[in-house]
Amino acid sequence: MAITVQEIAEKLQLSKSTVSKALNNASDVNENTRKMVVDEAIRMGYNLKNLKTQAKKRLCIFIENMDYDNIEQFAYEIILGFKSEALQNNYDVDIVPFTMNNKTKYKYDDYLLDNKYSGGFLLGFSFHDSFIQQLNNTIYPTVLLDNYIDNENVAWVGTDSYEGIQKAVNYLISQGHTKIALLNGGYNSRVSHERFYAFHAAMADHNLTVPDELIGRGDYTENCAERIVPGFLKYDVTAIVCANDKMAFGAIRELRRLGKSVPEDVSIIGYDNLPLASYTYPALTTIHQSRLELGKAAFFVLQKIFDGIPINKMLLKPRLIIRDSVSCIIKEK
Amino acid sequence: MAITVQEIAEKLQLSKSTVSKALNNASDVNENTRKMVVDEAIRMGYNLKNLKTQAKKRLCIFIENMDYDNIEQFAYEIILGFKSEALQNNYDVDIVPFTMNNKTKYKYDDYLLDNKYSGGFLLGFSFHDSFIQQLNNTIYPTVLLDNYIDNENVAWVGTDSYEGIQKAVNYLISQGHTKIALLNGGYNSRVSHERFYAFHAAMADHNLTVPDELIGRGDYTENCAERIVPGFLKYDVTAIVCANDKMAFGAIRELRRLGKSVPEDVSIIGYDNLPLASYTYPALTTIHQSRLELGKAAFFVLQKIFDGIPINKMLLKPRLIIRDSVSCIIKEK
Repeated sequence: MAITVQEIAEKLQLSKSTVSKALNNASDVNENTRKMVVDEAIRMGYNLKNLKTQAKKRLCIFIENMDYDNIEQFAYEIILGFKSEALQNNYDVDIVPFTMNNKTKYKYDDYLLDNKYSGGFLLGFSFHDSFIQQLNNTIYPTVLLDNYIDNENVAWVGTDSYEGIQKAVNYLISQGHTKIALLNGGYNSRVSHERFYAFHAAMADHNLTVPDELIGRGDYTENCAERIVPGFLKYDVTAIVCANDKMAFGAIRELRRLGKSVPEDVSIIGYDNLPLASYTYPALTTIHQSRLELGKAAFFVLQKIFDGIPINKMLLKPRLIIRDSVSCIIKEK
Repeated sequence: MAITVQEIAEKLQLSKSTVSKALNNASDVNENTRKMVVDEAIRMGYNLKNLKTQAKKRLCIFIENMDYDNIEQFAYEIILGFKSEALQNNYDVDIVPFTMNNKTKYKYDDYLLDNKYSGGFLLGFSFHDSFIQQLNNTIYPTVLLDNYIDNENVAWVGTDSYEGIQKAVNYLISQGHTKIALLNGGYNSRVSHERFYAFHAAMADHNLTVPDELIGRGDYTENCAERIVPGFLKYDVTAIVCANDKMAFGAIRELRRLGKSVPEDVSIIGYDNLPLASYTYPALTTIHQSRLELGKAAFFVLQKIFDGIPINKMLLKPRLIIRDSVSCIIKEK
């Protein structure tokens, strides 16, 4: 049964006309009243199609090198979380998939100005990217997923890599593994550097040093595993920590191709906990990133930058999800 | 001129009775309406004494080893920022200065339960403290200033130590200093560990290694400088990075006692940018922590934990404040 303006008005003890004005984004409605009404309308299940959001405020999500079309993909829930919070706070959100074209065509600040955006959320950009370099001087509040820029208007949102890699390494070691390799992402993303240092730190906590040959520099795609995993096997690794689930899927596929079974011969831990991770064979043990919450956090951080709070980093807690891709080899020792 | 209920009602396009009810915290006023009204009343300068806050929600600030009675002191603005945000969001806030007594008398969760607090903000607690150890298992949303607990209900709020120490070291090196010592705080606080590693990392960025003798383990008090600074001089340091302003004040005093002048003989950089820092002689070059914003961020993080967002860390950006306690020695080289 559809929620009516009348019901919202009663719930909020406001006049029906005020609620109606608010939902239609009339200019003579106080901003706080409008936000409260829309907020409550959404909570009560009011049909959002009836919501006129000619919002004065607009935000832009720039995305590159990341899939977000369906829930199976990494960025999908992040964008969903960001958009839902933004809508409830009277922001319109556009998604701009960036190609080299757009980037050469536009300067970041010019693009936001010309399109009347008040801030941006950037996902998947390469650290050395000319476009992202412009962020060093942007005057627009901007949030980056897993990347860092030294500018008071730009903040980093992500999951704590040190804690995540530490949980992965500690778990492997608790299962008797000591010859552990890291299949890392490309170093054009700041987060890859963090996972690299975090891996060495976590191993060092157990007095284990890691030879360079056990650090593989991938690119976060499934295919890069083919190039890197065979090298690990020369060193009799019993476990591989992958910097994302896609590379973990690739590692499992490549190990199978080489006649190795997971987890009997080699244990695998992923990072992200994509929905697919529970359906692979073996089901993937991985580090969970709360993607919906990451998107919400990104919006909150953007708001706080608007409020003049100089946020550098907002990091969420990772969680170890134990499935079937890690074997306990303590008996074998 | 005092703001009247009528004026608030007109501004918000609400009935005078609704506004009056909201300000008097009547039970039959919708929570969102109430928040909006109090929010606007505060913005318009409505006399808060007239505000009946028999708030249902209560928060507690626990503080130890920290001064907060006046604006000269480190915690004062942090608490002010937290309280102002809390009040605007209909929370009552109590401040509980903790002594060993209280701590043995009460378990953390029992204390919050018995006093109907829905969450806590802890400042200045020692990392090994039995009381803070209870936080490993607390079910109450809790925010720590500069400390870490591995619990989804507990978040860390602070200023990014890596960026702060890096800015200090980079500035000293830009002025020709290479023999740089760190006067650190006690290692019972997690942030001291971060500043220790950050110092080594920042020096390493310039291919400089730091002998153990140039790392002083203080306790964040002015007096500890007397014990540590003489040791630094044996190694002809030209600059000292202090992990807080108080130790920097102590270092300046001790150097003067030893017949050394700041910055001619030894340069000093502090951390915090206490109000006093601009009045010392020489005026202290230091790393600014936005304390009011830290307090606001702490409240905001607490709210997000209530919303189920597993926040691990919220770090603000530090800023280098250049005054007179660092000399340029490039010509002397």
